[in-house]
Amino acid sequence: MQIEMNGNTDQADEIRQLIEEWDAALQSEDVDRLVSEYSEDAEVFDIGSQFHGKSQYRAQWISCFPYFGGSIRLERRKVKIFADGNLAFVNCYTRISGANTPAHEKQPWCRTTVCLQKREGEWQVVHEHISMPIDFEAGAPALIVGEP
Amino acid sequence: MQIEMNGNTDQADEIRQLIEEWDAALQSEDVDRLVSEYSEDAEVFDIGSQFHGKSQYRAQWISCFPYFGGSIRLERRKVKIFADGNLAFVNCYTRISGANTPAHEKQPWCRTTVCLQKREGEWQVVHEHISMPIDFEAGAPALIVGEP
Repeated sequence: MQIEMNGNTDQADEIRQLIEEWDAALQSEDVDRLVSEYSEDAEVFDIGSQFHGKSQYRAQWISCFPYFGGSIRLERRKVKIFADGNLAFVNCYTRISGANTPAHEKQPWCRTTVCLQKREGEWQVVHEHISMPIDFEAGAPALIVGEP
Repeated sequence: MQIEMNGNTDQADEIRQLIEEWDAALQSEDVDRLVSEYSEDAEVFDIGSQFHGKSQYRAQWISCFPYFGGSIRLERRKVKIFADGNLAFVNCYTRISGANTPAHEKQPWCRTTVCLQKREGEWQVVHEHISMPIDFEAGAPALIVGEP
């Protein structure tokens, strides 16, 4: 994973570890571990809709797993981590594939932003924004395939 | 503008002022003022594409103004500001209309995330993420119209 770290290096490294834990949780389809870092008031702008709070986010992931059909693989590119004091944020490109999807290299990249706040000594995701661009003339997603 | 402030109240208020200045710059089509807070290495995930740095972001806005055709109006809802130390981020819904667009109330909402870092004492936007959700079954944008 290519990573650019900004701000406090130790804290940026804590965020890097959190992301790696999240990625491992997704690849093992462990939904409780997947949502464990999300706050009860997290605002999630997801690819297809918006979710408020950990329980809605959890339900969304449960509904997504059949799309992948197991053997989930996640890849991140151009990861930038900013961390300092009680706040942190990350931006990167992410692509996810599984047994039921097209080949990993053919899956489109998502644009990913994760924003965290340290609450009572623990980092929590308080906002997440995942999207794909839209080609408005075509009225369709402008899929990012290949190199992001 | 409904605003929820988190973290350091004085710093959150600095971010609120920056947003209000940006909104005023947009409504007066003052592109230099619009980009003045953006860093040279800002990563912008915009509705239709991705931009790197202030000059690409500036060119994008210049190309957008004809779409609005003057009399630009911008509205934000559900604004959450987090600020503390040298980092800050904002999430909200935004809709923009102009003389050439459908009526303001019929314009779809964008999902907006702005991430800032204080550099040499000045807040700079280092990442921005603006999107609309996508209905993949329909292969089209899932427009958020009415209340966000």
